[in-house]
Amino acid sequence: MTSLRELGEFGLIDRLASKIGSGKDVVKGIGDDCAVLDGEDLYTLVTTDMLVSGDHFNRRWQTPKQIGWKSMVANVSDVAAMGGYPVWALVSMALPDDVDLEYMDSLYEGMIAASEKYGLTIIGGDTTHGDLLVINIVIIGKVEKENLCLRGDARVGDLICVTGDLGKSWAGLDLLRAGVQGYTEYHLEPSCRLDEGRQLAKHVGAMIDVSDGLASEVLHICEQSGVGAEVHKDKIPISTRTREAAEKIGKDPYFWALSGGEDFELVFTVPGSEIDMIKDVSYTVVGRIIDDGRYLVDGDERSELSGGYDHFRT
Amino acid sequence: MTSLRELGEFGLIDRLASKIGSGKDVVKGIGDDCAVLDGEDLYTLVTTDMLVSGDHFNRRWQTPKQIGWKSMVANVSDVAAMGGYPVWALVSMALPDDVDLEYMDSLYEGMIAASEKYGLTIIGGDTTHGDLLVINIVIIGKVEKENLCLRGDARVGDLICVTGDLGKSWAGLDLLRAGVQGYTEYHLEPSCRLDEGRQLAKHVGAMIDVSDGLASEVLHICEQSGVGAEVHKDKIPISTRTREAAEKIGKDPYFWALSGGEDFELVFTVPGSEIDMIKDVSYTVVGRIIDDGRYLVDGDERSELSGGYDHFRT
Repeated sequence: MTSLRELGEFGLIDRLASKIGSGKDVVKGIGDDCAVLDGEDLYTLVTTDMLVSGDHFNRRWQTPKQIGWKSMVANVSDVAAMGGYPVWALVSMALPDDVDLEYMDSLYEGMIAASEKYGLTIIGGDTTHGDLLVINIVIIGKVEKENLCLRGDARVGDLICVTGDLGKSWAGLDLLRAGVQGYTEYHLEPSCRLDEGRQLAKHVGAMIDVSDGLASEVLHICEQSGVGAEVHKDKIPISTRTREAAEKIGKDPYFWALSGGEDFELVFTVPGSEIDMIKDVSYTVVGRIIDDGRYLVDGDERSELSGGYDHFRT
Repeated sequence: MTSLRELGEFGLIDRLASKIGSGKDVVKGIGDDCAVLDGEDLYTLVTTDMLVSGDHFNRRWQTPKQIGWKSMVANVSDVAAMGGYPVWALVSMALPDDVDLEYMDSLYEGMIAASEKYGLTIIGGDTTHGDLLVINIVIIGKVEKENLCLRGDARVGDLICVTGDLGKSWAGLDLLRAGVQGYTEYHLEPSCRLDEGRQLAKHVGAMIDVSDGLASEVLHICEQSGVGAEVHKDKIPISTRTREAAEKIGKDPYFWALSGGEDFELVFTVPGSEIDMIKDVSYTVVGRIIDDGRYLVDGDERSELSGGYDHFRT
């Protein structure tokens, strides 16, 4: 018997990927934010995320509307990370006995609000009973062929950049867990970088969204691009509100940024010569792509870049 | 507080459908076996099914390979019911702590075996932790525009037909629940009517697969087509093995056929004048489409056609 914890979430995904072949018109299968299918003018993007009560959300402090909203945002973020835009969604839900019609309506209200914000339509799904509340969303999107951004598109010498600021989602989660007031809004009602992704797609190389923490996302880019990376700790953008939250409950905001996840910011790589082309998106340069090795640089210290949220290990 | 049981599974689906608008290129949204998206030469079909441990399968008597197999078949069956063929699948799974790597491999083995049998490729998904084993599959398929079969395509006077035989899946389930030996093979390793669906699509009107029992499927056709139906109980095809199972454990095989589900046969309607065009598929005529009313005819008795598996009421 081999436990899944031993292999970890990403070991498991690699193992599954190795078992299945590639199919007709599949530009990119398992291993990116979306699967990519060939088409006439545009590529079709497909992504799916399963959210399970207790693991991905907590019904004690998240309202059903917030749960619905965040479930949809998490999936739109995957489409944004490919440079594309969402068009349709399918929603499957398993509903336990203590979910009533009003709760269910609010869940849906949150999903519909996010769908409207990000311009997509819910076209179907499945509604069934289960002893746990489980939400699975599928989004089908589109991207112009020249705008597709894969995790494997980073090149040695590229700068590593990130939009917005990091650690804010786990700041909120840890405050809620500790029962301490503070900056919880982003954890409860996050947004994602769809417009920014569309802008960035024209100029950048690799792109990925922050679902499991900066460390994890940079490591994914390294693996898929066959390169190394250096991330400078002092460059990681962390807001004052997040730092204050960390201080309040004695936590390390860099741990939240590197290993927390759910910030739904975009991490991307771009050649230094082209970075000035990016005009309408605010970003921070946090490191660069190197030949080999994955490092976190902190002043004179250089340690291995590691961490990232793992659903089987955390 | 309104319980979901009060509204029922299909009441809930109607409620959700009423909340969302229709989108760009959506030929058919919520309310059929698949969503239908417009395309150049072909329509794209998308379907999703969530299967939850304890509700949809039982880990005591189903091996992981059988669970994986059946999850995929249930989804392919929805594509068959539209007259189409499956091309790609995405698989999301929540895995509890007692699932080890070997179990996981077997689950996947079952899904891959079914994918190979029905000619589709798994192109992505999501693997996460959850306190219950949950499998969500999405299938994207295609159908020639002229072959699309909707639930709303039945016309007054059409014959109602069904492929194969009914009640076999719930025969197996009830035997397993009772711990009695017998015809359990179909429940554990069902197949679906993909080839038959492709043949039938050229000639028939409405089509739907049997996931919740014949009564439920005929009622769906009536609702979507705005017609009535008459089903003749003595015409319902039930095999000797299923009848023997019913006798063994004192159950009614007609209840299994009408309200059990998971037989994955196809129910379709066809004008009497065109039924001879169907040559390569074996089927049974079980009733006909009428103006109004939904009846189960048993000799001289005519009762209301009702029943069908409901995940919130059963």
